[in-house]
Order: sequence, then structure tokens, then C-alpha cells
Amino acid sequence: MKTITHPFSLASLLALALLLAPRPGLSQDPPRFDRSVRSAGNLEPAIPRPKQDAQVAARLQALAKKTGRQPNIVWLIVDDMGYGDPGCYGGGAVAGAATPNMDRLAREGLKLTSCYAQQTCTPTRSTILTGRLPVRTGLTRPILAGDKITRNPWADEVSLPTLLGKAGYASLLVGKWHVGEAEGMRPQDIGFDEFYGYYPAQKEISQRVDQRRFPNLILDKNRFAAFEGMGMGHSLVHGWKDGKTEDVRSVESTEDMARADQALADFTVERIKQLAKGDKPFFLEHCFMKVHCDNFANPDLEGMSASKYPYKDAVAEVDLHIGSIVRALEEAGVLENTFVFVTSDNGPQMDAWPDAGYTPFRGAKGTTFEGGVRVPGIAYWKGMIAPGRQSDELFDLVDLFGTALTLAGVAPDQLAGDRYYDFVDQASFLFHDEGHSRREAVYFWWGRELMACRMHEYKLHVKVILPQVTHMYIDHATVQDVGLAPWFFNLYLDPKEEMTVGHRLDPWLASVGSKLKAHGATFRKYPPKDVGL
Amino acid sequence: MKTITHPFSLASLLALALLLAPRPGLSQDPPRFDRSVRSAGNLEPAIPRPKQDAQVAARLQALAKKTGRQPNIVWLIVDDMGYGDPGCYGGGAVAGAATPNMDRLAREGLKLTSCYAQQTCTPTRSTILTGRLPVRTGLTRPILAGDKITRNPWADEVSLPTLLGKAGYASLLVGKWHVGEAEGMRPQDIGFDEFYGYYPAQKEISQRVDQRRFPNLILDKNRFAAFEGMGMGHSLVHGWKDGKTEDVRSVESTEDMARADQALADFTVERIKQLAKGDKPFFLEHCFMKVHCDNFANPDLEGMSASKYPYKDAVAEVDLHIGSIVRALEEAGVLENTFVFVTSDNGPQMDAWPDAGYTPFRGAKGTTFEGGVRVPGIAYWKGMIAPGRQSDELFDLVDLFGTALTLAGVAPDQLAGDRYYDFVDQASFLFHDEGHSRREAVYFWWGRELMACRMHEYKLHVKVILPQVTHMYIDHATVQDVGLAPWFFNLYLDPKEEMTVGHRLDPWLASVGSKLKAHGATFRKYPPKDVGL
Repeated sequence: MKTITHPFSLASLLALALLLAPRPGLSQDPPRFDRSVRSAGNLEPAIPRPKQDAQVAARLQALAKKTGRQPNIVWLIVDDMGYGDPGCYGGGAVAGAATPNMDRLAREGLKLTSCYAQQTCTPTRSTILTGRLPVRTGLTRPILAGDKITRNPWADEVSLPTLLGKAGYASLLVGKWHVGEAEGMRPQDIGFDEFYGYYPAQKEISQRVDQRRFPNLILDKNRFAAFEGMGMGHSLVHGWKDGKTEDVRSVESTEDMARADQALADFTVERIKQLAKGDKPFFLEHCFMKVHCDNFANPDLEGMSASKYPYKDAVAEVDLHIGSIVRALEEAGVLENTFVFVTSDNGPQMDAWPDAGYTPFRGAKGTTFEGGVRVPGIAYWKGMIAPGRQSDELFDLVDLFGTALTLAGVAPDQLAGDRYYDFVDQASFLFHDEGHSRREAVYFWWGRELMACRMHEYKLHVKVILPQVTHMYIDHATVQDVGLAPWFFNLYLDPKEEMTVGHRLDPWLASVGSKLKAHGATFRKYPPKDVGL
Repeated sequence: MKTITHPFSLASLLALALLLAPRPGLSQDPPRFDRSVRSAGNLEPAIPRPKQDAQVAARLQALAKKTGRQPNIVWLIVDDMGYGDPGCYGGGAVAGAATPNMDRLAREGLKLTSCYAQQTCTPTRSTILTGRLPVRTGLTRPILAGDKITRNPWADEVSLPTLLGKAGYASLLVGKWHVGEAEGMRPQDIGFDEFYGYYPAQKEISQRVDQRRFPNLILDKNRFAAFEGMGMGHSLVHGWKDGKTEDVRSVESTEDMARADQALADFTVERIKQLAKGDKPFFLEHCFMKVHCDNFANPDLEGMSASKYPYKDAVAEVDLHIGSIVRALEEAGVLENTFVFVTSDNGPQMDAWPDAGYTPFRGAKGTTFEGGVRVPGIAYWKGMIAPGRQSDELFDLVDLFGTALTLAGVAPDQLAGDRYYDFVDQASFLFHDEGHSRREAVYFWWGRELMACRMHEYKLHVKVILPQVTHMYIDHATVQDVGLAPWFFNLYLDPKEEMTVGHRLDPWLASVGSKLKAHGATFRKYPPKDVGL
């Protein structure tokens, strides 16, 4: 080592260094880690993409001119399917159930690999229909039989089907609802023109008929009567907005449950034929009952998966129905005017294993680790989304809300100004051939606790949910603070969130922490809603 | 419950049951869990596939008639690359390093998703060249600087390049060897016509020039001299069979190491041009130095991955070279007469994290969990392997040996009869458009311990290697017996080997156990070789 002698003082050297350092030019800002910009106090900041926005707007306009109407919107939501279940996400045959239809849609569309749900069902399902996080709407966790809610969370929400209805859309929800079954909280009460499905999840329904699994409920006549008294729905329901709601038939056996998705898919296929002939664009949310536990193989399809287990047969069956529904769109001649999105409402429910899926990531449903929140996200639109696209940029399922508004031509100023919206409009990300995400960060909540934040390839946890016995992420886990430093993972280096980069190996911990804090600060002006869940 | 009364005794009922049970017909055996058949006492049993064997044999014959020679064989072996590193295996951009070339080969070829290596380097590399498991050849673990070997393990082995040489092939090994660097153990000693590469792994070489990582070695002059005295190779070596061997140049800096793979790829590309013009078919084994730790980014390509970390840049660089090598085959006009196989020698070496890869599975290099042994396996042959194939059926890298023999027209009776061969000929699996694997089981060893067996979707462990601190699967782990019952996983239900199905949830534990025992029994007649490793 040589000693350097020079005529300059330390201060003048520093001044020189500053002079030589790259500086913001007059016409261009320096790159920022957080690229997002807030366009209004009550809207989630987004990364400006003016060029791709304009190009996609022009393409959508051209299509509307050609078809004479706004595009249809079809969401296919699988219940509790793991990120790793579809073949195109590393599972499929590897995990004992091939998924040729989802694989094809991914191959011919856009496969999102950083697509995020909430960590449980009700939160995700409410979020995509309100554009707002569960803690803002009060729908912070799955509603269960016997839950007393002090206030209807939907009463003061403006739902997507309501907004789309005003924009001229017909709307239909088929399948599982699970966002409240009391009057005022049902799909037909909150804006959907029609509902055909079940209020709760499969296990909530099947437990009253599955004596093999629940002998203590079914064989104890007094206990069973008490259970029935709670009034948990177990019927296929057909309801209309401002019209009658009727029970089509009750689930009276596990076989009834096993056949539910077939009936729902048949209904959707039939309705697609009718809606396609109608004079309105349509919004169809098809929510599968499967692959939520408890799965019973459809007798007509039993053993169709290589694995032969009910869960795997359920994955294969759902994939089959996805194929039928997309084929129905094609046969009805509306495939090129329909945005299709396939996803899951959260990670696999490992507590139910072996009636459970596969995620390559840490954690599972009920946690804010990647295994709980990173889900398949396949955007398919023949002629609009270029085949073979794949993106690891951020997408939160709440963005489906904003994207749907853009497709329907609903401007953000038509939204209520007195509440905070968490969606980002991702139309230009999804529909531009080289689209980039407009979302800079994803926030992870558990109930009323802000747990974690993802930004770029980083994930920062301020609280974590850890299983206390193997695979019991919901039923036997604890929520824990992280101690002196947040858990900070670089998901490129460590997709499984095992090794923290922390403050020792990375300079961005505080930056992601600031983003998380800024998100928390939105609740000062827009306080969370409490509905007693 | 009704009480059944009948005139039959228990014995007669049992006789009736036997009468009614499905029995082997005269013309057809009943299905068996173990479908394999042993064709000779010293050959691994294989699943008979006479029809696909015959069809593939005819196709190969037709091609040889057309080209006038046997096909070329090109293996591209990446060092320590994780199953999840390539995009086509769920990583790529998701893990911070896109791999467009491997993805394309997988898309246009056959992607194997149950392809198995040994759990470390030397074992895998020796296995594919001998057709025999490490415990049989004595090459049971990586050879390290300072290792004293009591006996040359190669002395009585008949290597693949020797057999292919007799069948008229030119053979060349480029890149990392790591299966012995003493005379008699080098590639040019064991049958390769030519060797151009390095004897040890990257870290073994770079440790003597990387002062940032190894200050205690480099700054202590006495210690450094002692280290140099051990004679660990650190030069690029060029050697010829029965000819001279010379040091081309020594690695004198981390930058030299960083540029090694570029020079190796350039050499291979150049040789492909020459070999394609020659009058012999060729066998080329190109072994990358990367992505084994310690990785230094090639200065010309630094930051080419999204992640920017040396490991991720190394994945991207290797992918680039794979593209160049395949392009060289195309430009030389031999692509349609060349079987290309891309793989890794074992799982990611997580001990070196963040200079380490990604596997979605449990464990890592050094363990016999899936993370240690399941590797990418891409079989590509333009015109011979149908594009878009994917198979989860079993393939052990030792099968490359048998497959190469078939391609070269070397019949099994040309193999020595005094030793056991573990390969299965997989030519008809790889090259038939609807090919099925001929392998019924994969056996997992650690040194001289038989650890585990995979059969169908089942994996049975009789011993396991468990890290005692986070991600230290090699440097801080213990080998443990499994207690009363083997650990028994259904990999379809549980790809991460977290939840045993054991004897409570599955009937096949004993069947897989029997297969493992039958494998162990082969060592009675054919005892393992001990070379003092």
C-alpha cells in the first residue's frame, strides 16, 4: 500500500467527487428505487408508463370500434390451488396431475410469476371486487359458520359488478362465494345480476354429510341439530338482483359435493352461449368449489390424475372445466373480445394434507410467506395478449379491479373519493406485447396486522406466521414479531425465503421498510373498517 | 350392521375369494408394481418395452443409413446447477436469471422432470462414464486437494470413451474433470482422445488467487507455500491420449477464473467445426466450470442477469454458451445427427449461498433428498426427439452410458461380464415420440451407505442427511438412521418430502423396501471397490 500525498484537503476532494458524480440532468430525474407516483391521495401510487398506456388504450379503442362494445371479462378462480399445481408453474405431471388446459392458456397468453393473492379466501375474493384491501373493507378473514358480524361490510362498498353494471355490463357469479351469506352480503345483493353457486367452501358444506370424516358431528344427534341450527348454507343457490333467490338443491351426500363443479361448469358454459348472443358485454366470475378441502372425486372422472388422490383428481377436473369454459367462449364467437384470467385465491391449504396442493415456496395458505400468497396468474386474450409472454413483474389480484374498470371504460374519477383504493390499473402491463408492471409494491396483511412488503425482488417481513408443528400453517401456528431487524429476503437469490440478506448484505432494507411505512400511513387519513370479524 | 349367516366355513370362503380374485391368465401376467426384468445377472433390471425399442432401433438405423455414420453425442454438464435454475424448470427470470437457450431446447426437445444425479460431483461424473454407481467404482465422493488415494479407481474400469473409441468415435472432454488428476486418472488416460480443461472445481482453483475470500491462506506465506506444495491443479490443461499433456495457462487472478468458461466454449465451438468435417462420429462432453462456487462474473457479461449476483450471472453465461454450442452444431450441419443432453451433476450447493442456486425441493447438494439429486435433464435432437415432450418417468444420469452405447451400436455383450452395471438403456424412452422409461427404480447412495430408493412416485429413505444449521447440507449436517419405519414419501402428493405416507397411508412401503434390498443384494456377488477415498 502506497501513501498518497496530494495538495488537496479532504473537503476539496469531496467537492471534486460530487462534481464528478453523475447528477440529475435538467431534463431527466435520477433513477429511483421507488419509481411509483401518486396520482391522487386516495389511490395507490403507480409506476408511470405513459407510452404503453397510450398504445394499449389505442388497441382497446380499435377493438371496441370493431366489435361495437366493450370487451367481456371472465375470471376463473380456483379455490386454494397452489402456485406449483399447474404444469406451467413447475407442477402438473411432476405433482401427479397434468393440467393441459392451463398450460395451453399460459403458453398462448401471459404467465405471471409474481402474482399475489391475500393469504386466505374471503380477503382475496372481497379485494378483487372492491379494489380495496381486506383491512379497509373489514373482510379480514374467512367468514365461518357461527360467525356473528356486527355490521355488513358490503353496505358502504361500491362493488365492481355495480360499477360495471352502470357501464352497461351484464354480470354473473357462478360457484363459490364465501364473502357473506346473510341478506345484503350475497352476490345478488352486492351488484351481480345473477348468482348460481354455493355460499361457503366445500368442507363447510360436506362436513354435514361426510360421516367417515366427521362421525362425531353426524352420529351425535343433538350436536348435529345444534350445527344445523347455525344455518350454514349447504345448497346450490340461484339468485337474481332485485329478484327471487331460491335453493336449487341441497348437498345430501359426498357424491353431491363431488359433482358440484361439473354442474357449475355446465351452467357457465350454457350462460356463455346466452350472454354472447346478448346486447351487453358481460363480466363472469366463475369460482370453482374445488380444489378446497374436502375434495371428493367426481365419479365420472375419478382417477383421471396420475396420482389418483382426490386432490389431484380435483386439479385435473378443474383444468378440464377451464378448458370447457374457454372452448365455450370460442364456440360462442367471443374469444377475441374476452379477457380471461385464471388464478387461485391463495396458496395451498397444507393443514388439510394429503388433500392439499403444492407450492415450491415457504409457507402455505394462512401465512404471508410466498407459499401463502404467490399464486398462478394466467392472462389470456386471443389476439390481444401475445402468446408466450411471461413476466416476473408485480401483480396483485386487487389489480384485476382496476384493469376491469379500464376495460369497461370506467374512469377513476367515477370512484368514491372518500376512501382509499389499493388497486393499480394493469391493463397496459397485461395487454402490451412488451408490457411492464405499473405496480411498485405488494403489501401483505394478516387480519389487522401489516406483515410484509414486496418491492422489486425484495421481501421484507415485520411479522411472520410460523407453524408450530409440521405443515400446520393455519391450525397450529403463531404470529411472531421479527426482533431487532426485519426479515429481509432477496427472492431472486432465495425464492424459498430461508436466508435473510438483512442489513448486512443489502442496501435496500430501509427503502422497502419506508414503503411499508408509507402504506401504513394511508390508514391515518383512511382508517380501517371494523365489522367484528 | 347386519350379522351375515351362511353355510360356509371360513376356509371355504377364503378358497372362494381366491377363486374369484384376478389371476394371471395363460397369455398375460397380472400387473406388477415392479415391472422390471433382469436380462443378465450383472445388468440392472429394466422395464421391457419391446415395441418402442424396435421402432427406435429402426429409426436410428434409417438415420445411420442416411448419414453413413453413427450419431454424434454431446453432453453439456453444468456444475452444481439447481433443478430450479433454468426457466423451463420454474426458475429462470423467477430466480433472477433468464435462461432462454435451455428453455428453447426444452421446448423443442424432451424435458425430463424426474432426472437423477448422484448427490455430488465426482460420483455423478464417474457414473456416466462407467455405467456403474460410485460405490462399485470406488469414486464415492469428490476428490479434494491433499486426498491420498490408495489405488487408481480407473485402472480396472472400462470407460465410455474407450468403448466408443473402439466403435469408431472421436472423443473429447472440455472443461471441468474432477475425477482424479494423477496420471492414470486424467481424461486423456481413461479413453478420451483429447482433454482441454481444468482438473478441479472453480473454488479449488480460485482460492489461491482470491485474497478477498481467503486472506488467511494468501497472506500467510508459509501456509500458502504448504498449500502450493499439495500440487492442486490450477491450470488450463491440454492433453492427448498417448501423447503429450501441457499446461496452457495458469489461473493467476479471479478474472482468469471469470473468463474460463468463455475460453472453454470457444474451444468447443472451434472443435465442433473440425469434428463435423472429420470422418468419425464424435462424443463430446462439455463440462462447465460454472456455476460451482466460487463464481466470478465474466467481465464481458457482468450484470447480464436481472439479479446481478455472480451466481445468477454465471447461470445466464452458461445458458449463453449452451446456445453457442448448439448453434455451432447447427452451423456445422450436424444438428440432425447429434444427440444433445443438458444436465447438472447434482443439486445446488446451498452451503455457498448466496453463491448458490435454487431447487424447489428439500435438501441440496450433498444430500439424498430430491434437492440434492433431482436435476434438469433436457434431451434435444432435431428431427429425432419430438418437440414439446415432457416426462416425469425415471431417468438416472447413469443411463446416459447405456444410451450412448446403443447410439454407437455397442451391444451389451461387449461389456465385461465380471462386474455389475447400473445403467439402463434409455434410447427408446428418449427417442420414441411416446417413449416410456425403461427404468423402474433409482437408488441413492452417500459414500458407502445405501440411503434411499425411488420407485414410481414413491421415495423411501432408510438413512437421511439433515442440516444442523440453516442451509449447511454439506459442511454442518449429520447422517441419521430413520428409526422404526423408513421415511416414505409420495412425491406426487408431497414433492418437498415433508410428510411421510409411511405404512399408515400407503401399501407400497414394503415393495419399495424390497427393491432397495434387492439392489443391496447385488453387492454380495459383485462387491464394492475401495480406493481409500
